[in-house]
Amino acid sequence: MAIQVAVIGAAGYAGEELLRILTRHRQADIAVITSRKYAGQEVSEVFPRFTGSKLRFSDPDVSRIAAGCDAVFLALPHGLAAEYALPLLESGLKVIDISADFRLKSPAKYKEYYSEDHPAPELLSKAVYGLPERYRKQIKDAALIACPGCYPTSSILPAAPLLEAGLASPDGIVIASMSGVTGTGRKVELPLIFPECNESLRAYKTVAHRHLPEIEQELAFAAGLDREIALNFVPHLVPVNRGINSTILLNANPGCTLERIAEAYEKAYGNEQFVRVLPANSFSDTKYVTMTNCCEIAYNLDPHTNKVIVTGAIDNLTKGASGQAVQCMNIMFGFDEAEGLV
Amino acid sequence: MAIQVAVIGAAGYAGEELLRILTRHRQADIAVITSRKYAGQEVSEVFPRFTGSKLRFSDPDVSRIAAGCDAVFLALPHGLAAEYALPLLESGLKVIDISADFRLKSPAKYKEYYSEDHPAPELLSKAVYGLPERYRKQIKDAALIACPGCYPTSSILPAAPLLEAGLASPDGIVIASMSGVTGTGRKVELPLIFPECNESLRAYKTVAHRHLPEIEQELAFAAGLDREIALNFVPHLVPVNRGINSTILLNANPGCTLERIAEAYEKAYGNEQFVRVLPANSFSDTKYVTMTNCCEIAYNLDPHTNKVIVTGAIDNLTKGASGQAVQCMNIMFGFDEAEGLV
Amino acid sequence: MAIQVAVIGAAGYAGEELLRILTRHRQADIAVITSRKYAGQEVSEVFPRFTGSKLRFSDPDVSRIAAGCDAVFLALPHGLAAEYALPLLESGLKVIDISADFRLKSPAKYKEYYSEDHPAPELLSKAVYGLPERYRKQIKDAALIACPGCYPTSSILPAAPLLEAGLASPDGIVIASMSGVTGTGRKVELPLIFPECNESLRAYKTVAHRHLPEIEQELAFAAGLDREIALNFVPHLVPVNRGINSTILLNANPGCTLERIAEAYEKAYGNEQFVRVLPANSFSDTKYVTMTNCCEIAYNLDPHTNKVIVTGAIDNLTKGASGQAVQCMNIMFGFDEAEGLV
Amino acid sequence: MAIQVAVIGAAGYAGEELLRILTRHRQADIAVITSRKYAGQEVSEVFPRFTGSKLRFSDPDVSRIAAGCDAVFLALPHGLAAEYALPLLESGLKVIDISADFRLKSPAKYKEYYSEDHPAPELLSKAVYGLPERYRKQIKDAALIACPGCYPTSSILPAAPLLEAGLASPDGIVIASMSGVTGTGRKVELPLIFPECNESLRAYKTVAHRHLPEIEQELAFAAGLDREIALNFVPHLVPVNRGINSTILLNANPGCTLERIAEAYEKAYGNEQFVRVLPANSFSDTKYVTMTNCCEIAYNLDPHTNKVIVTGAIDNLTKGASGQAVQCMNIMFGFDEAEGLV
Repeated sequence: MAIQVAVIGAAGYAGEELLRILTRHRQADIAVITSRKYAGQEVSEVFPRFTGSKLRFSDPDVSRIAAGCDAVFLALPHGLAAEYALPLLESGLKVIDISADFRLKSPAKYKEYYSEDHPAPELLSKAVYGLPERYRKQIKDAALIACPGCYPTSSILPAAPLLEAGLASPDGIVIASMSGVTGTGRKVELPLIFPECNESLRAYKTVAHRHLPEIEQELAFAAGLDREIALNFVPHLVPVNRGINSTILLNANPGCTLERIAEAYEKAYGNEQFVRVLPANSFSDTKYVTMTNCCEIAYNLDPHTNKVIVTGAIDNLTKGASGQAVQCMNIMFGFDEAEGLV
Repeated sequence: MAIQVAVIGAAGYAGEELLRILTRHRQADIAVITSRKYAGQEVSEVFPRFTGSKLRFSDPDVSRIAAGCDAVFLALPHGLAAEYALPLLESGLKVIDISADFRLKSPAKYKEYYSEDHPAPELLSKAVYGLPERYRKQIKDAALIACPGCYPTSSILPAAPLLEAGLASPDGIVIASMSGVTGTGRKVELPLIFPECNESLRAYKTVAHRHLPEIEQELAFAAGLDREIALNFVPHLVPVNRGINSTILLNANPGCTLERIAEAYEKAYGNEQFVRVLPANSFSDTKYVTMTNCCEIAYNLDPHTNKVIVTGAIDNLTKGASGQAVQCMNIMFGFDEAEGLV
Repeated sequence: MAIQVAVIGAAGYAGEELLRILTRHRQADIAVITSRKYAGQEVSEVFPRFTGSKLRFSDPDVSRIAAGCDAVFLALPHGLAAEYALPLLESGLKVIDISADFRLKSPAKYKEYYSEDHPAPELLSKAVYGLPERYRKQIKDAALIACPGCYPTSSILPAAPLLEAGLASPDGIVIASMSGVTGTGRKVELPLIFPECNESLRAYKTVAHRHLPEIEQELAFAAGLDREIALNFVPHLVPVNRGINSTILLNANPGCTLERIAEAYEKAYGNEQFVRVLPANSFSDTKYVTMTNCCEIAYNLDPHTNKVIVTGAIDNLTKGASGQAVQCMNIMFGFDEAEGLV
Repeated sequence: MAIQVAVIGAAGYAGEELLRILTRHRQADIAVITSRKYAGQEVSEVFPRFTGSKLRFSDPDVSRIAAGCDAVFLALPHGLAAEYALPLLESGLKVIDISADFRLKSPAKYKEYYSEDHPAPELLSKAVYGLPERYRKQIKDAALIACPGCYPTSSILPAAPLLEAGLASPDGIVIASMSGVTGTGRKVELPLIFPECNESLRAYKTVAHRHLPEIEQELAFAAGLDREIALNFVPHLVPVNRGINSTILLNANPGCTLERIAEAYEKAYGNEQFVRVLPANSFSDTKYVTMTNCCEIAYNLDPHTNKVIVTGAIDNLTKGASGQAVQCMNIMFGFDEAEGLV
């Protein structure tokens, strides 16, 4: 017996990827799929890949979803997700939020980065950060999942084990990330048309990007700190469709060696099917992870500056969004964690 | 009366770009163009863009070049340039080396990074680093120019004025650069074929890249230090043909403000036609500099970590190699500095 | 109980795609995978995507394969496949050839286009052309499958139903195709490095391409002719990784209308899960078929020249090679035809 | 003494390219540059490449332009150009129209393809088609130039000499063209954002494209016909920024050989600096013409179908639009035809 799922706000690239995964998932049926913009249209009109699927966009109708579904994915702009999450949680559904509303534990940080009061601060403590490799147990029992952003996934997975093992300092971390253009969403804006992105390399939002506090929060947790940390996160837009590669420089602690780094990763990810750690002195490459739910990690040590340099590559739409969301769903419902994902 | 120039080792992308520039230069004639691989062939057979030019590759013949030329460009693998530079300098030619042989002042550093003894250490003190915006006077009187590498040009131009003005610390600098694939040269290797580069984002040589000591040398000079500095330089390969964007994070010194940064750039580059400094909180973009000799600089200040974040975009083949080489030649011979370059 | 399969010559892109599909196939196990070049190496060393798979390349050993396998895929240069096919067929294995050796019924045509005598002409009449939408019944009972080339698949599927229904003439057909660079194989050659392909559009082999006689053979069959036809096939190389779009212009016969074209396609493909026919006056797009086994077909009618203009888009490595090969295997062994393919 | 020129409607890619060319033109000064959308803004705000230029967009003011300028370029949507052309011609200015308004000699054809009555049919007979390699003499004395479209330039230049020499038939011509995305203009539409174009190959407007009647008109002229011809023109959108490659198939006439084709091209273009004819059995490549005003032509002969297959590659913004417009201006004012173009 398959569960019934709803996808609210499915007209963007993360929504399309969620459909791609869910349509091959053998234990979940898509019961409802909503889009204000495309309500009434067949999904195949918007995404020709799904020709033959018969799915049709509807307006979001909370009571109908509450009545007929077991789980709901929210793929909405920030601020809106809380509105749907509250009644659906009360109706007993599992809510998996792909947007940013429940990622930060601190309402003050939310306000600082999103310029608004948090719409449902009482939910923040209940939400579990949907990174299975770090919070699998809590995900299993959670009702509300806050799926990590794409940049944070590509940064936290490589960096956290080093902090946890005390091999690197939580202070002075620098992250330089490159993202494909689907990372900006399916937006129709002049800087995103093909001739403006192709043959173009550019940094953007080098200060105070909204994914920054989420990375700081999780790396402080990984380091076992009960204080805040401050780090630099610099995103770049580059001409590929899918994929993020994050390069992370950390100050090595005394005793940090390539062997001990390898051990830390083995301990953290030795049994993980969606994390691949390359041999020392390798480099992760997005082309080996696109269209998969895998995170590829590589590491190096620079004795000259005493830095650990790690890189993490993911598909921003899969492990960085919809794949990870389904991985969480699989854990919550006791399915094979890889169902729909290979 | 035009000067006669030779290009030695012209079969790569930097050589092609040099030809593109020199064929439209009104005060320099290409007298000799050599390539061991293509000797005897017309240039247009190798680079169809030059159909109609009648130039033909020859084997390099030092005495013929010495007899007939006023200036020579060397575009050779490291270690080889010195071999040609010595006799040509003795014959009174101006030598402009696009390779790496004369960039480092220290033979020890050369050995550390190139794994060989320097072939002509006595020339190192005579060579002038060919970055006109910093060494214009010395270039004017030099016989031997060591043209900077592409990554260094994109890093030194943005960072040096901040160090010179004391606005940022020379310690703890992190540089993350992205380069188009022509930056690897015209190499025929599996990792460089189209399907391996397209839709791929990857770091490489994150430790001890050969451009690193050159950046450290020049930034230490800019900071007025007589000691060495150590910084991190992480290059990435991304799927564009031309262009480098370097993101540089420096620790801000007390009193560093956006206004003082603007002043430092104005002082350094206010009269420079090939450096464009964008307004505060902008981002440089390679698409605005490709096929030009321009370096575009942008700057931001992150109060949260107290870092200055600057970015520099250049065309790796023009300002990063052949354009800058011709700019140096123009200065050496008293031509309009922009001749052939706009 | 899964069948045991061998893949001979698996080091190219079609081989990689075959592995990607077979590793998720629930009724086929990869027992042997060979590559002369990489024998002894783990597959994951050559294709990092397969890290964790434990598969290892071996030298091709026919007797070992014959003893342990039920089916074998040949992904070899033309001329070599016959060598392996003969003994393996005699040992009772099902042989699925992805190369060109058994596609043409006429040994004379083979010699004309491949400049050699056919190595095993006696097998030509036994081989079944592996296009399931046209030869499903014969595939079911065949021992030897000649998988179509990528260009032919993208051309025959759109054109054949029109000829079969008498809506267009088999004479005067023009096909202009565009292919991504993986279509050339995993070759390390100067014209295929990134800077030579990116931002480049070029025709190649506009006369006598090796896929031409295969298209002519199949379209003559579709038209019910027992004479040869001659058509023009012009391939172009364009900067995408995967995907072929073929545009086919045919002379419309009297009575050809958009409605009758729609009927012909409905009759041919109404029950096909891997062919998607768009509404009249649409255009197929490779981005909707890459990483799938689907062929997307679109059609238009030009009253001004009385031509039917149809386009077919496929993923050259999936429906154009390895996906179709697995589709054939599924049919031969009575598996669900889509197993491993969605 | 430089002439004063105005550019009306300069905010698109053709406008940007015109600026790039005119700013380095030594005998023409940009006196006025207009854009309703950007009036009042500095050009460098819209196109950062021109930082430092001091040019500023204004609203189009015909009387001011008439009073102060010698020549005007119109880069406007069809239907609008006529409005400006009339008063400016009356004021004695030379008018060079990059839009489509004056390309067709027949107002009926204009109405058929543009769905409106022609706004100034009396000007059609006065306008000269701005293809210098075919109409240089008429351009010299013209007051109004209708610059060819990009697809027509890439098609007419390769095909016309064959028709003129009687080597191929004007009937049954098929043209398949591929264009980079700047060819669609600087439009902000969903199908043109990066993720929708990258890794995508698609035909569009395969029937009745607006460039079709222009090609038919000029090829009928080349063939010396006083009747209309009908041909097929199929455009495709491919993921490059700049460049068009057109592949043209013509029915060979008796006596057509590679030698005679070479002679026809030599006669037509032997003295042309912006047309490059490759040796027989070569293939033109856009990467050798982008950022130049050159058209590269290649030719083959297919004995199997008796077709001549020629290809033409241009930069759609340069030889296909703004470069050719400046070439016309140079001819009209007696300047070196290549001024600003190399």
